[in-house]
Amino acid sequence: MEKNIPKISAFPTGESNSAFEQYFSGKSYLAPLTVNSDLNVPMANVTFEPGCRNNWHTHTGGQILICVGGSGYYQERNQPARRLEAGDIVEIPADVEHWHGAAADSWFSHIGVTCNPQTNKNIWLEAVSDEEYREAVK
Amino acid sequence: MEKNIPKISAFPTGESNSAFEQYFSGKSYLAPLTVNSDLNVPMANVTFEPGCRNNWHTHTGGQILICVGGSGYYQERNQPARRLEAGDIVEIPADVEHWHGAAADSWFSHIGVTCNPQTNKNIWLEAVSDEEYREAVK
Repeated sequence: MEKNIPKISAFPTGESNSAFEQYFSGKSYLAPLTVNSDLNVPMANVTFEPGCRNNWHTHTGGQILICVGGSGYYQERNQPARRLEAGDIVEIPADVEHWHGAAADSWFSHIGVTCNPQTNKNIWLEAVSDEEYREAVK
Repeated sequence: MEKNIPKISAFPTGESNSAFEQYFSGKSYLAPLTVNSDLNVPMANVTFEPGCRNNWHTHTGGQILICVGGSGYYQERNQPARRLEAGDIVEIPADVEHWHGAAADSWFSHIGVTCNPQTNKNIWLEAVSDEEYREAVK
């Protein structure tokens, strides 16, 4: 690991999230938590460094975020951002444009649950600009 | 709430788990965490008092346990029990006979995820006897 990552939850941090880094502004880490595909609930712990967020995107089958450590934000297009702390749950309906990530001054971890995995696809859009991010989290 | 329940996770404890109490030895609490049925990942936080466990049972569509606080156990029929702590994940395949619950000396909370909810049914079997429980957790 190239950074000194604080332990902010009981769940593993995993490795550098290189598969998705093109869709993130800032550094993130990914720890898959499940292996049994028959259960149809793939989940992974995602850890964001302070200020890190993913691009605007949608999931064609929706997603659930289970917040497990630190502080972050979730924002849907044209809505105020929602502050997130450990213990919060976000239910993201299919096809809703949104982003999520850490607060500017805190690491953040959530378990991301892929809903309806038989058909679910991520559709990645533009990055959340520094100006959009500052406005959302202020 | 009739008991002084310690705060062992960031997730809500909810109310007395009266709907399922006939299938539990000991007192438990249930906090549903999701409402959007289109996502097909219903989940609830289950909190067990020390020594509390559910009956032997199966899920026809499987279940995932996300351990969030305290210490507990998971046991499949004819297998040694697995000790559980916050941060542990249990993937329970369809139709496998098992039980889960708290350690004798600790409260325990896990998020229970219903897999394949379109068709999943719980099949409840006999209680885990005090002798079985003592043997499993010793």
